[in-house]
Amino acid sequence: MVFNQLKDGVKWPSSIQVCEVGPRDGLQNEKTLLTVEQKVELIERSVQAGVKIIEIGSFVHPKAVPPMADTDAVARRLKRVEGVEYRALVLNIKGLERAEAAGIRKAKLTVSASRAHSLSNLNKTPEEAVRGFTESAEYAASRGMVLSGAISTAFGCPFEGKVSLEQVLSVVECFREIGVKELSLSDTTGMANPQQVYEYGLRVKEQFPDVTWNLHFHNTRGMGLANVVAGMMAGIDRYDACFAGLGGCPFAPGASGNIATEDLIHMCHEMGIETGIDLDQVISIGRYVQELIGHDTSSFILKAGKCSDIVKA
Amino acid sequence: MVFNQLKDGVKWPSSIQVCEVGPRDGLQNEKTLLTVEQKVELIERSVQAGVKIIEIGSFVHPKAVPPMADTDAVARRLKRVEGVEYRALVLNIKGLERAEAAGIRKAKLTVSASRAHSLSNLNKTPEEAVRGFTESAEYAASRGMVLSGAISTAFGCPFEGKVSLEQVLSVVECFREIGVKELSLSDTTGMANPQQVYEYGLRVKEQFPDVTWNLHFHNTRGMGLANVVAGMMAGIDRYDACFAGLGGCPFAPGASGNIATEDLIHMCHEMGIETGIDLDQVISIGRYVQELIGHDTSSFILKAGKCSDIVKA
Repeated sequence: MVFNQLKDGVKWPSSIQVCEVGPRDGLQNEKTLLTVEQKVELIERSVQAGVKIIEIGSFVHPKAVPPMADTDAVARRLKRVEGVEYRALVLNIKGLERAEAAGIRKAKLTVSASRAHSLSNLNKTPEEAVRGFTESAEYAASRGMVLSGAISTAFGCPFEGKVSLEQVLSVVECFREIGVKELSLSDTTGMANPQQVYEYGLRVKEQFPDVTWNLHFHNTRGMGLANVVAGMMAGIDRYDACFAGLGGCPFAPGASGNIATEDLIHMCHEMGIETGIDLDQVISIGRYVQELIGHDTSSFILKAGKCSDIVKA
Repeated sequence: MVFNQLKDGVKWPSSIQVCEVGPRDGLQNEKTLLTVEQKVELIERSVQAGVKIIEIGSFVHPKAVPPMADTDAVARRLKRVEGVEYRALVLNIKGLERAEAAGIRKAKLTVSASRAHSLSNLNKTPEEAVRGFTESAEYAASRGMVLSGAISTAFGCPFEGKVSLEQVLSVVECFREIGVKELSLSDTTGMANPQQVYEYGLRVKEQFPDVTWNLHFHNTRGMGLANVVAGMMAGIDRYDACFAGLGGCPFAPGASGNIATEDLIHMCHEMGIETGIDLDQVISIGRYVQELIGHDTSSFILKAGKCSDIVKA
């Protein structure tokens, strides 16, 4: 039989960049507090597995997020590795100063795209919240630190339902004004769908071609990897994921968390998309995380194994 | 099919057809046996919710699949509804005769695309297995019954790993030779990935444009809905799903089952794709199924709720 070339041209990226957010977005929700040593071990094993970007924690008030209280100590203990980026979440200039003191060169500022959510949380619109980062941006620039921005509830929000593309673009504009060139659209509440991800992804890339775009999905409603596929179709090649699929959503207790690093990498490798990461090592990190926190998680590959595992030799 | 064309050429269907396979592919794996009345109730509630195609059971040897032993009784009890198709799985002419006697007009013949799997199970190649249906096809034609074909392990198989597109096309060819015009590619073992689904979907449609194509996915490795999205991109608009996400994979005990009907419909409606099905009714059927079988299942929406559920009024 002779086959014709594919007619329609959906193009997958030949490789994607996976950012491990487990030490921050995963562990911040866990009741079991890990030690500094355990966190450092997880991060260094991720580096060993080939992960090049790791969100190692957050410099926020220790009482607000107790599992993140030791981020300074974790950051100080990490071996710096050529080509590996350790980034941390900060909320303001205080966090930025702590990050710098601990040797972290890349900080992520976060803002909610939802006007209602932002007003309720901070009594500021999203745009005002971003403009409030101006001093932080100047501080970072003067110290040679790099800032990225995370736009949370970029697709949907419990306070106002679907978040419009116009609203997202307006927040992006503000981030650009303060000089931030790397941005993430985050589906914190698991409300994004593939059509929306594709549409928003295409438009932000079109409107802001000089921005480096990241996507961050939770698998709350089963659409996590479908959203990754939609993001790839829109030409975005940087994705957050979390070891063992930790993390959750305060609005849906018991629901699935972040997409699992092992699930994302498994899918990519099956699709012929390179990640530069050793899947078996990531799986073994995931199992270790489950041991440390003492409960089952929403990872698929930790349950079912890789496709190749069930193939008889 | 009408497509909403987006700028860079990704086309989503404006509507899809969802086939409820729960009464067959879901319940056949459950330890708790439902009564005929309970099965009829589930099927009739699905019809009420707007489902137009339901796989009501299988006419196989009662000892081989005890939960399906009462399919004759179920079929006899069902009210016929204009525009609703009740289909059943059969393995041979005996099953077809039982289906006919019970008033079922549409039967699904199944064959494994994997040579190694088919030889091990039936001592026949997939092509020989399909040709073995010739008598069934003639019987069906003479009785005015309609046959569809399911090609299981169409993407991957524990006996031989990835199943090649050439192998799948060769099985399709045999089905066409015996006059079957509706076919399903089934990812029984949860080994399909979006790149492969897109590629196989495009090619089978191109090569056999007169066939009505269906896709059947399990969420074993988290790629279920991602594969649906890839199938839609290839222009396929008929998908199997199972209430509450029942079903499993003998090769990965404890893993997720079929994609859940409520998860699929929820994603489609969020994407603006019509299904003609009432999501709330489907969710309530899913909850009832969980009650009947007495355990939790791998449905996301039954855990997390719809996106709209968390939006404050």
